[in-house]
Amino acid sequence: MIMSTIPERLHALRVAMSEQHIDVWIIPSADAHESEYVADHWKGRTWMSGFTGSAGTLVLLHEKAALWTDGRYFLQAEQELQESNIELMRDGEAGVPSIHRWLIENLSPECTIGFDGNVLSKSKSRAMIQSLNALSPSLKHTEDLLDTVWTDRPAMPAEPVFLHDDALAGKTREEKLIQTRKAVKDAGGNQLLITTLDDIAWLMNLRGTDIECNPVFLAYAMISEDKTDLFINQNRIEPQALTALKTSGIEFHDYNEIISYLTRLPADCQLIADPDTTSTALFDAIPHNVTIIEKSSPTRLLKAVKNATEIKSMEACHRRDGVAMVRFMHWLSSAVSTGTHTECSIAEKLEDFRKESTEYKGPSFTTISGYEANGAIVHYSPEPSTCATVQPRSLLLVDSGGQYPDGTTDITRTFACGELTDEERRDYTMVMKSHINLATARFKKGVRGLQLDVLARQPLWQQGMDFNHGTGHGVGYFLNVHEGPQSISPRWIDTPLEPGMLVTNEPGVYRSEKHGIRLENIMLVQEDSQTEFGDFYCLCPMTLAPFDTRPLMADMLNTAEKTWLNHYQKRVFNELAPLLSDDDTQWLKKATKAI
Amino acid sequence: MIMSTIPERLHALRVAMSEQHIDVWIIPSADAHESEYVADHWKGRTWMSGFTGSAGTLVLLHEKAALWTDGRYFLQAEQELQESNIELMRDGEAGVPSIHRWLIENLSPECTIGFDGNVLSKSKSRAMIQSLNALSPSLKHTEDLLDTVWTDRPAMPAEPVFLHDDALAGKTREEKLIQTRKAVKDAGGNQLLITTLDDIAWLMNLRGTDIECNPVFLAYAMISEDKTDLFINQNRIEPQALTALKTSGIEFHDYNEIISYLTRLPADCQLIADPDTTSTALFDAIPHNVTIIEKSSPTRLLKAVKNATEIKSMEACHRRDGVAMVRFMHWLSSAVSTGTHTECSIAEKLEDFRKESTEYKGPSFTTISGYEANGAIVHYSPEPSTCATVQPRSLLLVDSGGQYPDGTTDITRTFACGELTDEERRDYTMVMKSHINLATARFKKGVRGLQLDVLARQPLWQQGMDFNHGTGHGVGYFLNVHEGPQSISPRWIDTPLEPGMLVTNEPGVYRSEKHGIRLENIMLVQEDSQTEFGDFYCLCPMTLAPFDTRPLMADMLNTAEKTWLNHYQKRVFNELAPLLSDDDTQWLKKATKAI
Repeated sequence: MIMSTIPERLHALRVAMSEQHIDVWIIPSADAHESEYVADHWKGRTWMSGFTGSAGTLVLLHEKAALWTDGRYFLQAEQELQESNIELMRDGEAGVPSIHRWLIENLSPECTIGFDGNVLSKSKSRAMIQSLNALSPSLKHTEDLLDTVWTDRPAMPAEPVFLHDDALAGKTREEKLIQTRKAVKDAGGNQLLITTLDDIAWLMNLRGTDIECNPVFLAYAMISEDKTDLFINQNRIEPQALTALKTSGIEFHDYNEIISYLTRLPADCQLIADPDTTSTALFDAIPHNVTIIEKSSPTRLLKAVKNATEIKSMEACHRRDGVAMVRFMHWLSSAVSTGTHTECSIAEKLEDFRKESTEYKGPSFTTISGYEANGAIVHYSPEPSTCATVQPRSLLLVDSGGQYPDGTTDITRTFACGELTDEERRDYTMVMKSHINLATARFKKGVRGLQLDVLARQPLWQQGMDFNHGTGHGVGYFLNVHEGPQSISPRWIDTPLEPGMLVTNEPGVYRSEKHGIRLENIMLVQEDSQTEFGDFYCLCPMTLAPFDTRPLMADMLNTAEKTWLNHYQKRVFNELAPLLSDDDTQWLKKATKAI
Repeated sequence: MIMSTIPERLHALRVAMSEQHIDVWIIPSADAHESEYVADHWKGRTWMSGFTGSAGTLVLLHEKAALWTDGRYFLQAEQELQESNIELMRDGEAGVPSIHRWLIENLSPECTIGFDGNVLSKSKSRAMIQSLNALSPSLKHTEDLLDTVWTDRPAMPAEPVFLHDDALAGKTREEKLIQTRKAVKDAGGNQLLITTLDDIAWLMNLRGTDIECNPVFLAYAMISEDKTDLFINQNRIEPQALTALKTSGIEFHDYNEIISYLTRLPADCQLIADPDTTSTALFDAIPHNVTIIEKSSPTRLLKAVKNATEIKSMEACHRRDGVAMVRFMHWLSSAVSTGTHTECSIAEKLEDFRKESTEYKGPSFTTISGYEANGAIVHYSPEPSTCATVQPRSLLLVDSGGQYPDGTTDITRTFACGELTDEERRDYTMVMKSHINLATARFKKGVRGLQLDVLARQPLWQQGMDFNHGTGHGVGYFLNVHEGPQSISPRWIDTPLEPGMLVTNEPGVYRSEKHGIRLENIMLVQEDSQTEFGDFYCLCPMTLAPFDTRPLMADMLNTAEKTWLNHYQKRVFNELAPLLSDDDTQWLKKATKAI
């Protein structure tokens, strides 16, 4: 029996809850690896509530239900939850209770709280227990009730796993294992549990396609002083890759064996495990006499600092992606005037240009193509049935990226589609200033992303403007487009920026119901100079595609800003022209003319 | 018997350690209230080691001893420890072990670690136990061995405690107690332990003179839902103040009774206590069945946001301090050319100008008067016997402040004493740019000081320059010149800046063996504007004294920078001229001429 309506599904789950004497069931938007994007198997919150946004938590009581999501999704959730009887909780808005506060108000003491222990991280369940202390709740998290009601639940993905060439990776897995073991030892550990899929892919020089847009595969890894255990079904691994892994001495276990492996850890084990990315089920499986060193896997930092080979290879990748962008922009410059293209058809066209390269492996995330007022919806993703048709006026924001064996791209440009209002032009110029103020930063060794974030915002703040998202994030190398630990955002993350790290530079201005503007390049942290005052770093753009200069109010830019922009545009021309047709070169010549 | 040499003192303490079977004795630079400046009674580290700097920890083993201090004091400590046989540990330098690491290397397992539990905060002793986990040490911290050997130890201060007028405080103690109780309740508590002296002084509208430069007095306070207990020897309190306190229903206990009071707390008590500012002895006295909410006292934030009366009163205070500064600068402008004045005599002269005001209560910290290369020593304090004589060339840095019933001042100006080198002028101009870039900040509600810190550094970083101290700190109101919780520094402090908070703006450039420059104003956080993007704040200078414009390289300043500076100088003239003699007014007119 396939239940087709949300109320039917909610009812079925409540019946299952009753049978188990559970008062509340919590469904987060998470998989067993705390991935940002999850495979369909773990889209239980969507199946149960109808809300398709990427972030949200459904909390189901017998009498009522509520769903918490953030500002990006308020509008969408409102629409999608309309018929569900699920209350929308706008996270962060005044008067909206936290999940914990709401639970305290709605539950009786000594209640039973249920959730799937495989998808709620240890940090989250720990915080929950602490916040609900007053209720003295019992927790049930050994089975997933969804399994009993979600009869057509998609299986866990098991796509082929293939080698990522050492020549592109710049380091063999043996070298990476040596680095990792040293870091584990330096942190006082002798074993490491890795749950994060991109870390496992990086460490093993493997890639997969289990999760849309993220070239990873489901697995766990345990690294001890003399042994590397990979938990993955062997038959998924392509023969060549399997041979290579066995040559490296990797030992194989089935994916599901991780729990029993953990329960057998010896007492002298000093295990590094990260409660933020390890599920409650896994974390609780670790024997009590094991010393747990709670910190994130050292592979995260090792992976974030790109090596010379990766940087060199990425340059080719960005030229290739830049060629697709230029061809797209050239096409767009005449296409918009027809008034026939939609946000979707334009996104498809861009994808077509990327597909012309044989190295292209697919998008690195779902393209955001937002015209006029839709550009102001920060995580807008157009649907064929409802998307806007682009007219010869206002602005079109396109945020897209590709996966290639030699890199992951992520680029936002905002285009003038025809006549612009003064406000559109002023806002566009302000975003350009903001982008440049960060791009030209020189900063001292030890600086965190939070500190650089201000540089992008300062020009906007001066005008009473701002944007409600981070300025930048780390980027994977043929891996996840969002990669930690570094970021450039108002959120405190205690990771100094280091040469070799990538960060995006993507300030924006969004005027609700009017227009949205974002200008994004990926930047590489580089060494700049050593002086008597210390070591200084700077940022170098990796992304190669022109900014649309037509919307700029040139008199709002100072000399230094114009110099940076003209220099960047010229570099784009010089690097891409040799790879373009004459026609495209002519267009690019004009598009990159100095202002 | 008074022991006069350091080796004699060290020997005596070691004998006492032996008697108690203690392997290591630790003496921090702290009092029982985690004050920044401590009374002589608690200067045991100085007495025992000879090192007089404000920050340092002495660690004494039977076979050896070491003293950790930070970069400000490396030179001084080197000199002062010369004859002591105490090894200097330069904290933060490469290869220098932390105290904990050094203890692990030098102690055997199951050792006994001793310290005075009254002066080591709970956070610090807790961190120590955690770091020394591998040694399984026993701790002895119930008595202070120093008492047994430091026979001429100064008594604890017991100076008179007097009222701070409600009319100046802007709020009665009853109003402050209501605010505090509300904050305690909001944090889930029903009792509050206050150990920090400035919080107690603020809350009670009292002041004292127990600690040099800090108008506070030794006391503890306990605030419950219906009772306020003050732990202080009543006979110290001036009669008028005592009457006022009793009228407010304050109950009195002797200072030393705090411990026994804590041990008697009832089990239903939800106590807010701050392990960072509460001694190990006090914290451990709290019964196990009391729920401790570990957070800093809400009075810290309440005190930091100055009320309208305080702000209004402070304006008069800054005008008064500005008059002293102008008269000093006028005097200095001709005095330096004589080549007879020293760093000390100049500091005294400034003090004399301040003393001309009857409201002046003394310095808010020891004046830093650093000529030429001495200006590059960030916490330099001249000694009459060794201080430099000022010549008619180079730069003189003077950082000083005063205590007044209506405010605490803190101002740094750097003066041209005659001819300057191009490097001196360039550096001076860079510091001016840095000061202005922060002074002109507009920033969004919610921003932390760490974020603003970058604005002061950005112009310097662009030139490969920097300074090794925070950009700014909070300031008390006839209280401590350094007051939290806010600050503007590269250290993450999770306190958003709020209208009514004070922060200093004091960037600098220090060239070792050459010169030091710092330019400091106290700024008030103010509301600026509300836009569709949020609420924005700005900074308004409270300090009123001209900057020396003679060292400026005017062509390095852009129009906006010149506008800000000229506007500030003009405001200084307009506000101070009515309070000055004709002669001083004429000088100020010239000194504040637009550039």
